[in-house]
Parts: sequence; C-alpha cells; structure tokens
Amino acid sequence: MPTIKYYIREGLLPSGTAISATQAEYDRAHVERLRLIRALVEVGRLSITTVSELLGALDAPADDPDDDPDERLGRAVATTHRALSARPVAGAPPPERALAAIATLGWQVNPQSAALRELESALAALEMVELTPGEATLRTYAGAALTVAEAEVIGLPSESAAETLRTVVIGTVMYEPVLIALRRLAQQHVFSSRPRR
Amino acid sequence: MPTIKYYIREGLLPSGTAISATQAEYDRAHVERLRLIRALVEVGRLSITTVSELLGALDAPADDPDDDPDERLGRAVATTHRALSARPVAGAPPPERALAAIATLGWQVNPQSAALRELESALAALEMVELTPGEATLRTYAGAALTVAEAEVIGLPSESAAETLRTVVIGTVMYEPVLIALRRLAQQHVFSSRPRR
Repeated sequence: MPTIKYYIREGLLPSGTAISATQAEYDRAHVERLRLIRALVEVGRLSITTVSELLGALDAPADDPDDDPDERLGRAVATTHRALSARPVAGAPPPERALAAIATLGWQVNPQSAALRELESALAALEMVELTPGEATLRTYAGAALTVAEAEVIGLPSESAAETLRTVVIGTVMYEPVLIALRRLAQQHVFSSRPRR
Repeated sequence: MPTIKYYIREGLLPSGTAISATQAEYDRAHVERLRLIRALVEVGRLSITTVSELLGALDAPADDPDDDPDERLGRAVATTHRALSARPVAGAPPPERALAAIATLGWQVNPQSAALRELESALAALEMVELTPGEATLRTYAGAALTVAEAEVIGLPSESAAETLRTVVIGTVMYEPVLIALRRLAQQHVFSSRPRR
C-alpha cells in the first residue's frame, strides 16, 4: 500500500503541519483527502496521473463571482471525462460514428469531448466484428445511460457548491464500476431466470 | 501493431496451411478470428491473457449432446465475467455489501461470481468516500442494467448455437465501453439541458 509520504511527494496530498522534526499534524480535511485518494488509487485502480487530474477538477478555485455554478459543474464533468479517457484526442480522426449516434439521440454534447472519442472507438471495434448496434439497441443503451445520469443530477446535494462538485466528480468516476458490475450480474440473472426452451 | 505471427505464437490464432516454405494460406475463419483478436486487443485494450480466456469460452466444444444450450451460454457468460475481472477471487473476504444489494434486488446470481467481487469492491470504495448508494439509487442503476441485459438476450441471433455464443461473449465484452461512453455523454447532455437556476 503506497504511503502517505508517497502521495505527498506526488502532490496529491498537502503536507501536514510540522509539530516537531519528525512529526506532522493532519487535520480532518487531510484525512478525508487521503481516504478519497485511497479509494481512487487502491480500489478504483486509477493511475496517479488520473487521480491528480481529478483532484485538480475538485480544487479549481471558484473565485470569479460571475462564474455560473452550472457551467463550473459542466467544466468539472468535462475534466473528469478527459482524465478517465485513455485515448489521446489530438490527431485522432473525427468521431463520425459517435457523432451520428448522438445525432440520432438528439443529445447536446461537446463535439471535442473525450467521451465521444471513447464511444467512437467502441463503435469502431464493434464494426470490426460485425456487431454494430442497430438503432433500437443504441436507443436501449442510451435510455439506460440517460436514466442513470438524470437520477444523478436530481440526487445532487445542494448544501454547498463544493459538496456538489465533489459528488459530481467522484460520483462520475466511482459509479462506473457499479454500473458495469450490475450489468454483468443482470446478465446472470436474465440467463438464469429466462424460460427454458 | 502486433503481427499475425505474434498472435499465432501466443496461441490466439491457429497457424495457416503451409503452401510453401515461406507462405501460408489463411481461410475465412482465420480472417474473422484475426479481426476479433484485433478488436479485443488493439481497440478494446484487453490483455493477451484475457483475450485468450475469452477465445477459450468461444471454442469450448459442445460435444455432449446432453449439454443444455442455455447452461452452456450461462457458463460462457461466467467465463467472460471472470476473464474481464482484474481481481483475484481466492482469499478475498465475502462480498457482503454486494450480496446485500443483490438480495434487495431479488436477483439470482452465482455467489462465487467474479462480477459480485467487482460490485463489492466498487461499493467498498464508495463507502470509503461516503457516497454509498441508497436503495433508490441502487434500484435506478440496477433497473438500467437489467433493461440492457434483457434487450441483449431478446436480440440474440438464434440461427446457430455457435453464433449465439459468439454474440454473448463478444457482446458482453464490447458493449461495456459503449455503455460507459453513453453514460458520460448522457451526463453532458443532462448538464447542458437542465433548466438554469
């Protein structure tokens, strides 16, 4: 298990307040930040670089009073998607399949979005093996994704902007494995409970 | 890009029929298998070990006439989930959070399932950052997952058992990135289209 010192050295965690030559004091914010890093790195298996970008999205100062909270959340979501995306955007061909799919759905998304590149690459792979989704399949998946996204926005805490931001960024990252695991378990359930032929 | 020879050496692809000392002939099945490997390795970014396990699930012989096709599909799904799971099952504590969640949903799943371990680890990470899903959130995610799984089973090709098996195994693997990308794009859409406060 990486040590606190390692996270401090990597710039993920601020150093504590020195109380002697060999001891430092950590406050509640430190402990919470450490727990978040451990959840992302040790359980979520994200790279230090990715976690560093995510923490950057959380720490971005909101010092501009004209900065619209919704726009700030939108930017944090975009940063989160970029941090999670393994694929470099520069030099990639335009995500034509993904743009066509999103146009079919009538969704408003950023055409430069890292998530659009992820969708493109997933659709390109499906095309290679002749399993391209038809419109009905696309709508089923999109409907499921939208249900989840809408519930997330409705469930956001509204007490403080910082808390909302934390829930959006961390929730985006950490609910993906929940969705994937539940889809696999749903497959098992459907296969085990469908009528025998 | 890895070469055909590399895939042959790794045992993913059978060698062609030698037609001279330096040339081999590849038939249609070879070409299709190569395309599948490329989609899984080069686009899906799965490890050679994972791809090898997935191909094993596809190639498992169905020579027992008493082997129920539904049970065979169920086994292929279990193998696929195990291949996709990064976490070793042996020695892990019982997936208590995941079992409780599945009990709430009333789903029938294999208690030894790799997917259950994945759900457990996702829920443990959420608990660490105090974002444990409540029952309503769990049901929303599970409902979305079930919608997708049910549509998959209904859409399965029924012409041949081999084709059904291929669609189940490859579809399970290659639609996960579609679902994840669509969830991220749905977030963007929801954030960009919700009413201003």
